[in-house]
Amino acid sequence: MTTARRETPIYDRVALIGLGLIASSMGHAMKRAGLSGHVAGHARSAETRAAALEIGFCQSVHARAAEAVMDADLVVLAVPVGAMGPIAAEIAPYLKRGATVTDVGSVKQAVVESVAPHLPDHVSFIPGHPMAGTEHSGPYSGFATLFENRWTLLTPLPEADPDAVARLTDLWHGMGAKVSEMDPVHHDKVVAVVSHAPHLIAYTMVGVADHLAQVSNSEVIEYSAAGFRDFTRIAASDPTMWRDVFLTNREAVLDILGRFTEELFVLQRAIRMGDGPLLFDYFTRTRAIRRGIIEAGQDTAAPDFGRGKPDRA
Amino acid sequence: MTTARRETPIYDRVALIGLGLIASSMGHAMKRAGLSGHVAGHARSAETRAAALEIGFCQSVHARAAEAVMDADLVVLAVPVGAMGPIAAEIAPYLKRGATVTDVGSVKQAVVESVAPHLPDHVSFIPGHPMAGTEHSGPYSGFATLFENRWTLLTPLPEADPDAVARLTDLWHGMGAKVSEMDPVHHDKVVAVVSHAPHLIAYTMVGVADHLAQVSNSEVIEYSAAGFRDFTRIAASDPTMWRDVFLTNREAVLDILGRFTEELFVLQRAIRMGDGPLLFDYFTRTRAIRRGIIEAGQDTAAPDFGRGKPDRA
Repeated sequence: MTTARRETPIYDRVALIGLGLIASSMGHAMKRAGLSGHVAGHARSAETRAAALEIGFCQSVHARAAEAVMDADLVVLAVPVGAMGPIAAEIAPYLKRGATVTDVGSVKQAVVESVAPHLPDHVSFIPGHPMAGTEHSGPYSGFATLFENRWTLLTPLPEADPDAVARLTDLWHGMGAKVSEMDPVHHDKVVAVVSHAPHLIAYTMVGVADHLAQVSNSEVIEYSAAGFRDFTRIAASDPTMWRDVFLTNREAVLDILGRFTEELFVLQRAIRMGDGPLLFDYFTRTRAIRRGIIEAGQDTAAPDFGRGKPDRA
Repeated sequence: MTTARRETPIYDRVALIGLGLIASSMGHAMKRAGLSGHVAGHARSAETRAAALEIGFCQSVHARAAEAVMDADLVVLAVPVGAMGPIAAEIAPYLKRGATVTDVGSVKQAVVESVAPHLPDHVSFIPGHPMAGTEHSGPYSGFATLFENRWTLLTPLPEADPDAVARLTDLWHGMGAKVSEMDPVHHDKVVAVVSHAPHLIAYTMVGVADHLAQVSNSEVIEYSAAGFRDFTRIAASDPTMWRDVFLTNREAVLDILGRFTEELFVLQRAIRMGDGPLLFDYFTRTRAIRRGIIEAGQDTAAPDFGRGKPDRA
């Protein structure tokens, strides 16, 4: 896919606070499509800052977040959810009048609660969540096509400036994303089902395999089949990010895990009792959801047997 | 990858009993490498038999399994595990003296118990399990490279003829597989961890999403993110096959599910109590297993974000 470069950028200056997978992918995507005049970056680690300059997805890097946000028309908070409050407090006095502040956290209500109180009235705060990622992290893991055909969910507060929301929506469209708006609390319930609970379950299954003595570790690794292999990929995601996700979306995740356990016990009992019809009907029903996802364009019907090659820019 | 065609086949005549994903892939792989002189196929459905001839991975098809196995040097039982006993009883009187009988079921002890009693002493029974597959099923889903660089586990009984085991091993090597031998009971424990329990868990999570009222079905489908998307692919696998797997590997699967639930409760409690260090340490440990799998060559480090394209022959 090729994306036409714009004549004039959407934002003259963008500040990326945090330079991991999502921020670096945004840098690449904005650069490719000419969406930003200047991209300033901040990361706590000098090594990460040097990498961002060398890779070229930032035009300037700054040891202090406050320096990066000065004169920025858009500030993107791209740090783990637990770190957003403190960094918002730090940059607040330096934000340009009329600037937009957004974030890319996987949880929204907790971000609203920890970030909004610090921000001055003269900026628009529009929380966001690009639903895209890989199991890799850090500045070298980003690529320009990460957001293509993926959803970015924006959860603007009622008092948000509609023009600022429209402009941020344009930016995400320019990076190839589809954009939808919803309430932060509803957002957190949806992602608990489609992302957070599945991740915790994958972590758990990989953990079980890790300390099984009866099946030696090397056999688990050597013979890892499709199901388990997919779980290990999910369970290789960034530990800090996921710790914060579970701690800040606690209620919604615990609700889904409760439902999951009830459901698992139904199937477990069917196995113990030899109830073949129950298992068959259940497995037939889950097939239909898969068809729905393929029809919604969120995945392809091409078989995946662990050797897929991603499209990279 | 190109595979040299052999001058002389390993078996003059092979009978495939059942013509789904695994059997059709074997047909393609044997044809490509010249491993078999003639491939005879049997399926209950006339439509499936016609498809096998049309696709060309069988040279003859037979409405009766007994006809397909006559004069065959190798008979491959490629039906769901629950159907293996009856079909073994049906073909037993027609098996060629000195023939090898194998199967491709995902469970081994139950196959040994249901098939072995029917077979005459003049054949070698060598149960097998190719650890390869996709979420698709049926005669059109097969392809020649399915087994490449994947394990096939053979579980020969102590009385098995070593020459017959060596010949069957050659066949699997010729189709690109790596081959290992183990005890049937141990096999069932290993696959309970790396394949069966992960599948049941994926089915469960997709089932939870299916009947959540608070998050409408279309949202679950529309916003399905990486974790859940992988689960739906796993949960789209053949319902009959998986019902039989769980019913016939009951003890090993229930053992793993018990461990899984204990482990899940530890993480669930950590979320409820806000124990960030426990979560962080857990997620860091599971990352190491992923690295082991990549180093063992069972998957690639390339990021997968739901758009992978498989290598197809």
